[in-house]
Amino acid sequence: MSHIDSLNILPTADLSDKLARTRRLMADAGLDWIVVSDNASKYYYTGRVFIGNILLGADRILYFVRRPDGLAGDDVYYVHKPENIPDILHDLGIERLGRVGFELNQSSYGLIVRLAAALGVDIAGNADRVIMASRAVKTDYEISKIRESSVCLGEVYRTVPSLYAEGMTDVGLQIEIERISRLKGCLGLFRINGEEMELNMGSVLVGDNADAPATYDFAMGGAGVDPSLPAGANGTAIAPGHSIMVDTNGDFTGYMTDMTRTFVLGSIADTAVRAHRLTIEICDEMSRMARPGVRAADLYNRAIEMVKAAGLAGFFMGHRYQAGFIGHGVGVAINELPVIAPRSRDVLALNNVIAFEPKFVIPGTGAVGIENTYVVRADGLECLTDAPTNLVNLERR
Amino acid sequence: MSHIDSLNILPTADLSDKLARTRRLMADAGLDWIVVSDNASKYYYTGRVFIGNILLGADRILYFVRRPDGLAGDDVYYVHKPENIPDILHDLGIERLGRVGFELNQSSYGLIVRLAAALGVDIAGNADRVIMASRAVKTDYEISKIRESSVCLGEVYRTVPSLYAEGMTDVGLQIEIERISRLKGCLGLFRINGEEMELNMGSVLVGDNADAPATYDFAMGGAGVDPSLPAGANGTAIAPGHSIMVDTNGDFTGYMTDMTRTFVLGSIADTAVRAHRLTIEICDEMSRMARPGVRAADLYNRAIEMVKAAGLAGFFMGHRYQAGFIGHGVGVAINELPVIAPRSRDVLALNNVIAFEPKFVIPGTGAVGIENTYVVRADGLECLTDAPTNLVNLERR
Repeated sequence: MSHIDSLNILPTADLSDKLARTRRLMADAGLDWIVVSDNASKYYYTGRVFIGNILLGADRILYFVRRPDGLAGDDVYYVHKPENIPDILHDLGIERLGRVGFELNQSSYGLIVRLAAALGVDIAGNADRVIMASRAVKTDYEISKIRESSVCLGEVYRTVPSLYAEGMTDVGLQIEIERISRLKGCLGLFRINGEEMELNMGSVLVGDNADAPATYDFAMGGAGVDPSLPAGANGTAIAPGHSIMVDTNGDFTGYMTDMTRTFVLGSIADTAVRAHRLTIEICDEMSRMARPGVRAADLYNRAIEMVKAAGLAGFFMGHRYQAGFIGHGVGVAINELPVIAPRSRDVLALNNVIAFEPKFVIPGTGAVGIENTYVVRADGLECLTDAPTNLVNLERR
Repeated sequence: MSHIDSLNILPTADLSDKLARTRRLMADAGLDWIVVSDNASKYYYTGRVFIGNILLGADRILYFVRRPDGLAGDDVYYVHKPENIPDILHDLGIERLGRVGFELNQSSYGLIVRLAAALGVDIAGNADRVIMASRAVKTDYEISKIRESSVCLGEVYRTVPSLYAEGMTDVGLQIEIERISRLKGCLGLFRINGEEMELNMGSVLVGDNADAPATYDFAMGGAGVDPSLPAGANGTAIAPGHSIMVDTNGDFTGYMTDMTRTFVLGSIADTAVRAHRLTIEICDEMSRMARPGVRAADLYNRAIEMVKAAGLAGFFMGHRYQAGFIGHGVGVAINELPVIAPRSRDVLALNNVIAFEPKFVIPGTGAVGIENTYVVRADGLECLTDAPTNLVNLERR
């Protein structure tokens, strides 16, 4: 029996699926071991965040944990610091690690250099590619967790109209959405890839604030209320004719889901209504096209084709600034592989989980569009996120 | 006139103070330039978060911004990627950068290596030490921002008793505290140093959940509600005899403040009451002792002496697991220099801003203690955070 079967948190089938896939990818990359140092990746391989590192090899997985509380099982070792790892490896009869990859874009220069020195190895490769590719294909357990988050998030969206009160600002509405999300079990913290990325509980974009260019690499921008966090709601009062785009935190389980709905106050410009309808059609079209083997770039191009045919290209994915993608993988981080973008080399695989977020910014009205999270099944997309997709009028409540 | 005077966001005096201090520290470290790549550090030197980098030299500061919106002034340059920087340096007549330091513990291995290659330089040193030492001494403007956050956070703490309702759990109370904080202007995102650290809106610890060892390097632990985020409230119902420790997000301006207060339901064990009183006495003692030139370790040792004299050493800074510090600097991140710990080599300097957080975990009761944020003045500490320090009974409202 393998040592790995006894880790206390993840279902055995989940862990063995993940390890088998990761090891195939390691073999392709010519890596004998990878060192896991990023919190999201550690959670992926254990079901728990801890301070320490994982050494994942072709035949073994070893967990080096600074404070062992909460993570138990064979091959879980307590080490105060990485420099203590070699003694344990020696006791296990592991004398040479061979080619070792590290999470070069996830962990600091200082940590990577320290880990390599502690292990007495060179940095032989980038484990990011291996881990991200492994994370892109979800196990049944992972899909069940994303589904659980999706159900909770759908309930949040159905509650939004009841949270609106006359005279509210975008920030005021966002705060009530944050509260109801938390009451429904949202954990409050998004994990996000990209060291310059920062995210709190999501965003509510009202009116022309949606046209403030994104500082971060998000689909939409918004000026924010303070230059220390230049994103999202900026204090705009919600007024008739505005669209109100809600894209809020879907982390209810450690596995996230991503979802956007657009609300309106009174009637909005025809162009905006038409653009919103088109985003629903794009999602439907993606659902028809997407299946294992389809190129992400082809999906992007098809969406752009539909946008151009409607004469709305100048407003797609922003107006003053336009984002260069329409979708992304979702999992233990909110932005995983595959990336649905024009120059993406990603090809859809069975059990990818992808959020599609076609959105428009219409000057004078605001942002419109929807976002849903889907599983790539053999015969197409299965949608995990459910709430009305039409422009729900906050006034009619 | 220097180029730097025209940056559009920070007061001129603030930026020139920061640059003068940073440049002295760079000279001490033998660095000709440092490359700033961390969001908190970029905010420190500009008053705004942006994607890109700062090159800070002995005579010049250059801002390389991917999307220039929001940051304007002489020496702000738009670059799509770091590889475009050398052309601009060439145009400016800057041909050799000399010894260049990088934020080695703040930015990823991948980014640091890429930046160094783009600039055609070796990694000559760690800019972290320079930047962290510079950030540790606050300008008048920075203190005014921390004071502003402190006033808002004090209002939040005074509101806590009115948020409590019978039958609430720790999570339920925390959600109401988060909401009122956001309504009072809290930005919702803490910046925190340490790549394995994660923090949402703070923590509410009730009863024995306070004795769940910290996964992260916080003063207190708590199991959290999910192993993906093992910290803080875990769903404990608030019951008579419990202490309720609230340590919540003080980021109202981009400059943070840190503050803890303890509430009770009914009466709690005498030991806990005595321990709480001692934390107030420790803060008073720190206020008497602390001034420029005092060693951080001496402050820590004095606190430990008081704790031992009271026979409470087994409960100080935790019980099953004990944290090894009683205070830390506060600024654009929640955990800055100096660190108030037994082996700290830090020496207090004029205009350090420090949070002291002596806390106890009393089994059967929970966590007790207070935390305040102080400025180090020539003649002692000035306290910025204000709310009643006694054990406020939630039942008496």
